Amino acid sequence: MPDTHQPQTTGPDAAAAYEPTGRTVPTRSRERAAYDRDVIHSILDEAYICHLGFVRDGAPVVLPTLFGRVGERLYVHGSTGSRPLRTAGGSDEGLAVCLTVTHVDGLVLARSAFHHSLNYRSVVVHGVAHTVTDPEERRIALDAIVEQVVPGRSTDSRPADEKELAATAVIRLDLREVSAKIRTGGPNDDERDLALPYWSGVVPLAPGYAAPVPADDLDPSIAVPEYLNAL
Amino acid sequence: MPDTHQPQTTGPDAAAAYEPTGRTVPTRSRERAAYDRDVIHSILDEAYICHLGFVRDGAPVVLPTLFGRVGERLYVHGSTGSRPLRTAGGSDEGLAVCLTVTHVDGLVLARSAFHHSLNYRSVVVHGVAHTVTDPEERRIALDAIVEQVVPGRSTDSRPADEKELAATAVIRLDLREVSAKIRTGGPNDDERDLALPYWSGVVPLAPGYAAPVPADDLDPSIAVPEYLNAL
Repeated sequence: MPDTHQPQTTGPDAAAAYEPTGRTVPTRSRERAAYDRDVIHSILDEAYICHLGFVRDGAPVVLPTLFGRVGERLYVHGSTGSRPLRTAGGSDEGLAVCLTVTHVDGLVLARSAFHHSLNYRSVVVHGVAHTVTDPEERRIALDAIVEQVVPGRSTDSRPADEKELAATAVIRLDLREVSAKIRTGGPNDDERDLALPYWSGVVPLAPGYAAPVPADDLDPSIAVPEYLNAL
Repeated sequence: MPDTHQPQTTGPDAAAAYEPTGRTVPTRSRERAAYDRDVIHSILDEAYICHLGFVRDGAPVVLPTLFGRVGERLYVHGSTGSRPLRTAGGSDEGLAVCLTVTHVDGLVLARSAFHHSLNYRSVVVHGVAHTVTDPEERRIALDAIVEQVVPGRSTDSRPADEKELAATAVIRLDLREVSAKIRTGGPNDDERDLALPYWSGVVPLAPGYAAPVPADDLDPSIAVPEYLNAL
């Protein structure tokens, strides 16, 4: 049964949307695909964890990692010794990656097992990541990664010193070949199932944060900062 | 600075743990790696979404998808028209995949930007996925995927009929080459940073569910089932 929710269409202004490509047009549930720039930015900005895929010895590898967005650029950092960052840095060609961000918004329980689903928003970015060597861009990227997790934190902590910077690799992936996939709304039960005696509906997810737990060695006179209460 | 948390060691009983391999031993933060079978099962069982990586035309693709675990087997389902499932089904060799599950448990705020981290538990499974054709195993797999999301739901919904089963592909990935990575505890600040005036500690994540929202067309005499209250 086709999904009856409204498609996420792109506007008439081409600059407002990413250009769909062969690999960003899904083979199914096309009505869930979105290319709108603001929609994609907002899905990315609500996250700080992505799943980064790359190919090693012909086989796929998927690792969770932090990321930060600065305009049309995504940044990922890591130890200079980590595999993907070493690979990206070891070649002028860069590293082919797929960076995926997913939010689950609700469990969709239909009367039939077949129509069970999730409400979700995901973004998939395809491209080639390159190592960032420019010191100023590296600083911007590292601040962005901290800000992506806790807005306000990058100016309320000690910045990296030279030794720490030397141990940290940063790679950049431009937002060019990118799409979102979004499902919202209730279950899409078949007409024939409506009279079945099963509960049907959505269980919304309610992610949140618990109260901050100070470090054992924290000076008790240092209060929980405002930007943490704002989370 | 090395992480001072206790390593997650494997027991003396080999059967209690997965055998580490070249690609399941991390190049860094090795003390965070875990191979214990029960630990890995419990991380998997707390999730229902994974990020599935595969290679298409030489490039990595990472897609979020539901999964279910039955013993040492993971199952993923999808439309018979979806790309990874078509690829796995189109070849006796199966499809090389990397299936990754991640839970974020807390934001770790250190005095230095460099030592910011997350508390997390992730599992990475490498292997070759094969299409499941046996009708009984397909039924078990599809029930497991529903149960992974909402325990108790597979017996409280209409099972798939022949037409729905024909439209659904199921692939299996055996748990053989698998590892977990776990970080717990507070920030690992450098000694020299302890007197800095920045708040330091952990912000725990508190994931949860909001009250179930019945479908618009649900018979009001059907109450919210017990297994949803138990979520």
